[in-house]
Amino acid sequence: MANSPSGDSMTDRIVRVLETFSADRSMQTASEIGRHAGLPSSTAHRIVDELVAAGLLERDEDRRVHLGMRLWELALRGSTALRLRQAALPFMAQVQARVREHTQLAVLEQNEALFLERLSHPEAGANITRIAGRLPLHASSSGLVLLAFAPASLRERVLAGPLRAVSPETITDPARLSRILTDIRRAGVVVAPGSVETVSTGVAVPIRDAGEVVAALSVVLPREASPHPATAELREAAAAIEAALRASR
Amino acid sequence: MANSPSGDSMTDRIVRVLETFSADRSMQTASEIGRHAGLPSSTAHRIVDELVAAGLLERDEDRRVHLGMRLWELALRGSTALRLRQAALPFMAQVQARVREHTQLAVLEQNEALFLERLSHPEAGANITRIAGRLPLHASSSGLVLLAFAPASLRERVLAGPLRAVSPETITDPARLSRILTDIRRAGVVVAPGSVETVSTGVAVPIRDAGEVVAALSVVLPREASPHPATAELREAAAAIEAALRASR
Repeated sequence: MANSPSGDSMTDRIVRVLETFSADRSMQTASEIGRHAGLPSSTAHRIVDELVAAGLLERDEDRRVHLGMRLWELALRGSTALRLRQAALPFMAQVQARVREHTQLAVLEQNEALFLERLSHPEAGANITRIAGRLPLHASSSGLVLLAFAPASLRERVLAGPLRAVSPETITDPARLSRILTDIRRAGVVVAPGSVETVSTGVAVPIRDAGEVVAALSVVLPREASPHPATAELREAAAAIEAALRASR
Repeated sequence: MANSPSGDSMTDRIVRVLETFSADRSMQTASEIGRHAGLPSSTAHRIVDELVAAGLLERDEDRRVHLGMRLWELALRGSTALRLRQAALPFMAQVQARVREHTQLAVLEQNEALFLERLSHPEAGANITRIAGRLPLHASSSGLVLLAFAPASLRERVLAGPLRAVSPETITDPARLSRILTDIRRAGVVVAPGSVETVSTGVAVPIRDAGEVVAALSVVLPREASPHPATAELREAAAAIEAALRASR
């Protein structure tokens, strides 16, 4: 139905249009969208017009478009992510208030750590993660936790490489990564100094729902900080979030 | 392009499929989706298959589908709502910690108040609003603030009615509503007892960006609570959010 000569569906083309938007590129003309999406300009203009008519994109006075509130609403209203986020947020706020550093919630999505939420203290240190941003599983502390508890097939695929270095200290040796994942499954926590940025240490713990790890809760500390108080706060918060998830079933 | 005999575009049909999902209906079969979207079953099945292939929907083992993390990611990654929410969240958390009641952020969207964020204290009272939920402009305190500063044409349309009662105390008299809106523009705050639920009072203030009111910040208090401490907290938070928005431009 509605397939182009190249065989991609109309849905694919709509997704390609939406994919051109990012935090750094939140306002675009239809022509720019066509260029970034690899679509003919006439196709891009038609899809943009349809998306504007449906409210998924909004057009400004200067003809540039941005993602519409309607898209945000449709994506969140019936979202399973919302249940997890709502269960986690009060306890993330508690961790953030006590540890006074960045506090984050991530899930496994298409072989990466996708960050659902981030609370940041105004005076907290460096942190490259963004809400709705992603990091490789082997690099971030959240990713390491998600990978440690992921299906064996995914672990094997990641360990088979390539293991891209995000920072000079990212774990890129498969044997070392495998040992770390075993340690995480045993200890229920990871402390990952410098693996995303040299100046910071990620600490992450798993969150379980119905017996399965569904998310990782993490803080990003300055490199010199002791990870122990944050670990205790994260464990306490994870237990509270798991109880909230049980209560919301 | 790809229009059905009834003239709706493929984009419209995709939106109709996504619209069938809600907090109360987050998991559905393709047949259920077709029924709720008013689409022929074969059409619904094809669109659902395409949306699953694109990751916007995810299919469970029992063949039911739910909204995918990919949709959430696409909707948020380049979203202007995210900028507002990120600027507001630390100060909403501060209001919530001090007032210890529900704290909410809403924007004007398609003639209703759309709630972008809600922080709830575990012991806080009744509150029917939901994230990505909506309330009529004339009923909620957030809606009243958004309406007070909305374009005159929208105010006139709302005042022309009908003004549906959400609770027995919702303002449904146009002359009284008009006076309240004038008061809000002068005072920069509204205290709305019982207009959504008899047991609670909404208090809301405007948030401005580049000179225009872009959101309302509100708390929901128990009916018997004094609104004054919450009003002071809201005003302080709104000023801080406005400063954060200026800094993020």
